[in-house]
Amino acid sequence: MTNYKTTELGKIEDLVKLENGKIFLHDALELSSCEISVNSVPKGFKVPFNHRHKQNEEIYLILKGEGVITVDGTAVKVKEGSAVKILPDASRTIENTSDGEFQFICVQAKANSLEQYGLSDAELC
Amino acid sequence: MTNYKTTELGKIEDLVKLENGKIFLHDALELSSCEISVNSVPKGFKVPFNHRHKQNEEIYLILKGEGVITVDGTAVKVKEGSAVKILPDASRTIENTSDGEFQFICVQAKANSLEQYGLSDAELC
Repeated sequence: MTNYKTTELGKIEDLVKLENGKIFLHDALELSSCEISVNSVPKGFKVPFNHRHKQNEEIYLILKGEGVITVDGTAVKVKEGSAVKILPDASRTIENTSDGEFQFICVQAKANSLEQYGLSDAELC
Repeated sequence: MTNYKTTELGKIEDLVKLENGKIFLHDALELSSCEISVNSVPKGFKVPFNHRHKQNEEIYLILKGEGVITVDGTAVKVKEGSAVKILPDASRTIENTSDGEFQFICVQAKANSLEQYGLSDAELC
């Protein structure tokens, strides 16, 4: 019994070879605090539906390329280094507008669940 | 009042120019579910202390380079695509063992706070 668990995704650009261009970490790492997807999608990729969440806030962080996240009908242009928080109730979808790969991470965790963070939650040991 | 908030970090490799080579998203995005740091640290970088958490699970995702995360005294080698969950009570530190930059993301969220995820929490709209 250890206090950590690891998984190896391989090179992030190679995730584009997977059916949906994504891999999830929750089950692989037995997470209890959040779900994380790591995504590498090809030119022309668009999630073909809008969705919202019941409880969970989502945070998208763009690692490579350019795209558009549409939130409640508003198109938000994103590129490497863009980070976007989306509240649970908002409608959202994401598309790749690059000429090549579009890489991003999406974290979902329960809205209002974080009680403390940073120095409040950490202690030296 | 919108259901989303954005911030721009710029190119992730350029975060190495910041004092600690990192930027946090919680305050910039007014997150309520987690804290996320995005890190780009130079050759030779090592966090000079061990720490643990009171409530929060941490997940490290390595984007570039190679390093070592030491958990409860065990050295875990990591590289691009490695993902590591660390439970709150474990002692941890991280170092760059690459010849160049080491890029990673660290998510912290409250252990056992996630009630549902994936299709259980999402609905088409």
